[in-house]
Amino acid sequence: MNRKLHLNAFLSSVGHHEAAWRLDESDPFADTDIEHYKHLARVAERGKMDSLFLADQPGLWTDIGRRPTCALEPTLLLTVLAGATERIGLIATASTTYNEPFNLARRFASLDHISGGRAGWNIVTTATVGAARNFGLDELPGHRVRYARADDFVEVSRKLWDSWQDDTIVADKENGVWGDNSRLHPPEHEGPYVKVAGALNVPRCPQGHPLLVQAGSSEDGRDFAARHADAVFTVQQTLTDAQAFYADMKARAAAFGRDPDTVKILPGIVPTIGRTQAEADALDAELDRLIRPEYAIEQLSGMLKVAPEDLRLDEELPDHIATEDQVEGGKSRFTVIVEMARREKLTVRGLIGRLGGGRGHLTVAGTPTRIADVITEWFTAGAADGFNVMPPVLPSGLESFVDDVVPVLQQRGLFRTEYAGRTVRDHYGLARPANRYELSGIR
Amino acid sequence: MNRKLHLNAFLSSVGHHEAAWRLDESDPFADTDIEHYKHLARVAERGKMDSLFLADQPGLWTDIGRRPTCALEPTLLLTVLAGATERIGLIATASTTYNEPFNLARRFASLDHISGGRAGWNIVTTATVGAARNFGLDELPGHRVRYARADDFVEVSRKLWDSWQDDTIVADKENGVWGDNSRLHPPEHEGPYVKVAGALNVPRCPQGHPLLVQAGSSEDGRDFAARHADAVFTVQQTLTDAQAFYADMKARAAAFGRDPDTVKILPGIVPTIGRTQAEADALDAELDRLIRPEYAIEQLSGMLKVAPEDLRLDEELPDHIATEDQVEGGKSRFTVIVEMARREKLTVRGLIGRLGGGRGHLTVAGTPTRIADVITEWFTAGAADGFNVMPPVLPSGLESFVDDVVPVLQQRGLFRTEYAGRTVRDHYGLARPANRYELSGIR
Repeated sequence: MNRKLHLNAFLSSVGHHEAAWRLDESDPFADTDIEHYKHLARVAERGKMDSLFLADQPGLWTDIGRRPTCALEPTLLLTVLAGATERIGLIATASTTYNEPFNLARRFASLDHISGGRAGWNIVTTATVGAARNFGLDELPGHRVRYARADDFVEVSRKLWDSWQDDTIVADKENGVWGDNSRLHPPEHEGPYVKVAGALNVPRCPQGHPLLVQAGSSEDGRDFAARHADAVFTVQQTLTDAQAFYADMKARAAAFGRDPDTVKILPGIVPTIGRTQAEADALDAELDRLIRPEYAIEQLSGMLKVAPEDLRLDEELPDHIATEDQVEGGKSRFTVIVEMARREKLTVRGLIGRLGGGRGHLTVAGTPTRIADVITEWFTAGAADGFNVMPPVLPSGLESFVDDVVPVLQQRGLFRTEYAGRTVRDHYGLARPANRYELSGIR
Repeated sequence: MNRKLHLNAFLSSVGHHEAAWRLDESDPFADTDIEHYKHLARVAERGKMDSLFLADQPGLWTDIGRRPTCALEPTLLLTVLAGATERIGLIATASTTYNEPFNLARRFASLDHISGGRAGWNIVTTATVGAARNFGLDELPGHRVRYARADDFVEVSRKLWDSWQDDTIVADKENGVWGDNSRLHPPEHEGPYVKVAGALNVPRCPQGHPLLVQAGSSEDGRDFAARHADAVFTVQQTLTDAQAFYADMKARAAAFGRDPDTVKILPGIVPTIGRTQAEADALDAELDRLIRPEYAIEQLSGMLKVAPEDLRLDEELPDHIATEDQVEGGKSRFTVIVEMARREKLTVRGLIGRLGGGRGHLTVAGTPTRIADVITEWFTAGAADGFNVMPPVLPSGLESFVDDVVPVLQQRGLFRTEYAGRTVRDHYGLARPANRYELSGIR
C-alpha cells in the first residue's frame, strides 16, 4: 500500500506516566541532563520515526512535590538534539499568547537553519492561569481571544518566513552588493493583535516554513488547525470517536481550500509494552500503585470543577459535574475524560490510574504485536495518519517501542525502513511552501 | 603579577570590518553556516579566551545591499557552540525592551545548564526605531524608560534564577516526593514595568546566575552597569579616556556597595594583524577601499543628524552637528566618534574608514607585538581589565590573534595558558552568587 504511517516520539522527562520517576530505573534529575535527551533522540531516530516533540508551557505544570516538573526551554533543547541526530524532525511547543511573533518566528527559522530543515512548531495558546501570572496578567485571556491572537500571530509569522525570497542574497563581491532589496519583503503587518513592520533578520529557512503542528480540539481549535496545521495531535479514547474527529478535520481542511491529505492526524497513544500481556499489565499496575492519589484528586477536582471531598477513590464520578462550555482550556480533553469514566464505569481510583498514564490519551498495555495491531487498526480504519507515541517510562518505553513495535509495523509495510528525505516536511510527505511574494510575481 | 587579563572574542559574520565580506577569503553565506561559527568558537577556545560573544538586535542592522546583515538567534547559536566547545564562556545579547523576563531568564538558565555553567547575557535596551516597529511600536521608547524597564527586568530575572534553591529537588522516590516546596520561591514580583508571579520552570543553574554583561556608557547606562554587570564592554579611542571611564566605573560600583574588582572593564579593540607593519597597513587599506561610501554617508548622516549633502568625502566634518543630548541611542558612541574625527582631523572618507573597521572602537594595525603592546599598556595603566577582541576579518583575524598575539601575552605572564575553572564566572575570577533566599534564612 502507498499510504505510510507517521510516528512522532513525544519526549517527556522520564516518561508520560506521572509516577515513572519513582521507578528504580528512572533518573529524577533527567530533565536538565542533555545526555538523557540525546539518548532519547537517537533511539527515536534509530526507529526512523518522523519527528520528536517537546510539550511546553511558560510555568510549572504542577506541584513540584508530585513529580519532575521542570524543562529546559524547548527550542534550545531541540538545538542540542539537532546536533545529536541527522534526520529526525524536531518539534517544539511555543505559546502565541506569551511570545512576540518577531522573536518566535526568528527562533524557529534559526532552528530550521541549524537542523537543515527539521524544525516544527507546535502552536499552543496556553490555557493556564499560572502561565498568565508569569506575564503580568491576573487572569487567563479568554479562549476566543487567545485563538484570535494565535491566528494573527501565525499569519504574520508566515509573512516573516517569506520576507526573504530564497534568492535574496546575491553576494556580488565585485560590485559590493550583498542582498537584493527587491527580493526583501517587510511584512508591514497591522493585525488586530500584533503589528510587525520589518523583515526577519534570518534568511528564508530550508523548509520555507517550519512544520506547523496544532493540538486544539475545541471548535475554535479545530478551525485553527484546519487552516494552519500540517499535523494535528489529538486525544482520542475510542476508534469511533477518532474516526469522527479524523473525518471532521479532513472536511474542515477541505472547506478551507486545502488538500485534506496535507493535514496529518496523529492521536496520542501510551503503549505499555511487555513480552507477554501479563508483563505489560504488571508494569501498568506497578506504575498506578506509585501514584500519590492526593495530588491526582486535587488536579481532577480542578479539571472537573468538583469539590475534592466529592471525589471518593472507590466510587464513580458524581453525577453533577461541569459541562464543556464551563471550562476554559483543554475543553475537548475534559469531555474525553468524563465520557471515558462514564463509559468504562471507572472508579475515581481507576480514572486516576488512566489519567496518570495518559492524561486522557489512549493507553494500551500489551505485547508488541498487540500495540502494532491497535496502531494498524486505527490507521487503516480512517482514524489516524499516524500516532503521537507517549511512552509511559523513558528511555525504556521508547527503546522497546523502537526495537519491538516498529519492526512489526515495518514488516507489515506500514512504516519506512529508511528515511527517504532530509526535512521533517519530507518525512510527513508535505511540500515546501512557496514564497507568497514569488507566487504573486512581486520582485 | 597576580592580576590576569581577560579576553572576549566578539564574533560577527565574516568580520567586524563592514567590507570584510568582499574579500576573496570570505564566505558571504557564513551567517547561517553553523560550521563557520563552530570553527570560530574552537579557535577562540584554542586561545584560552575567557568567552565568545554575539551582538544582536531583533531586526535588520542595515540595508541588506551593504553587507551581510542576518543572524541566527544568539541563544540558539550559542547552544550549538556549547556543543562544539568545552570551556569557553558563551555570551549572547538579548534585549530587555523586546522580551518577557520569564521567557528570557529561562532561556539563559537553560543555556547555562546545557553548557555546564558557561552562559552570559549581554543586557541591552535596543536603541533603534527599526526594532521598535517589529514589536508593534511606532517610536523607540525613551532612553530613561528603556533603562528603568531593564532595571526591573534584571531584578526579576535574578529572583527567577533564585526561585529554586540549589537543593530543591529531593528526589525521594520512597515517599513519592520529588521537589521540596519550602525551597521553591515564586517571585510574586510587581515592578513598575514587569510582573512575574511564579517560580521558573528550570532548576537553579550551574552558575547560580549567568554572567551579566552590559555596554551602556551614558549616565543611565553606567549606573545600570555599575549596579548589575559582571563585565562591561566599552568603546574607547584613547588611553586617557579609557582610564577615566575605568576609574569612573570602579567608583560607581563601589558606591553601589560592590567590590570594584568584580566589575571587569573590557574596551573593544579591532586588531589588523600583519607579519610586518606594512602588511597590516595594506590589509587595512584594502578593506577601506572596499567600503561603498554611499551607505556609510547615509549612516553617518543619521548618526550625526547632518544632511548627507553636508558630508563631503574629502573634507572634515562640518562645524555644526548635534550634541549628545539630542541623540537617543548610543549616546557615548556619538561623542567618541565626533571627538575622534576632530582630534585626528579626519576627512569624512577617513572617518568612514575608521567606522567601517571598528564602528568607533579602537583600531590598531600592526605586528602581533604591536597589538600585544597596546593591550599590555592599557591593561597595566588602569584602562582595562581585558579586551573585547573584534577581528576585522573572520576567521583569519581571530586565527592570527590566537596564534600570534595570545602567545606574546602568555609569555609576558598576562594571560592564562590553560583554563583553571569550568564556568565563565571562573574564567573572569567571579564568585557564584549566593541564593537570596538562602542568605536570608528563608527555608
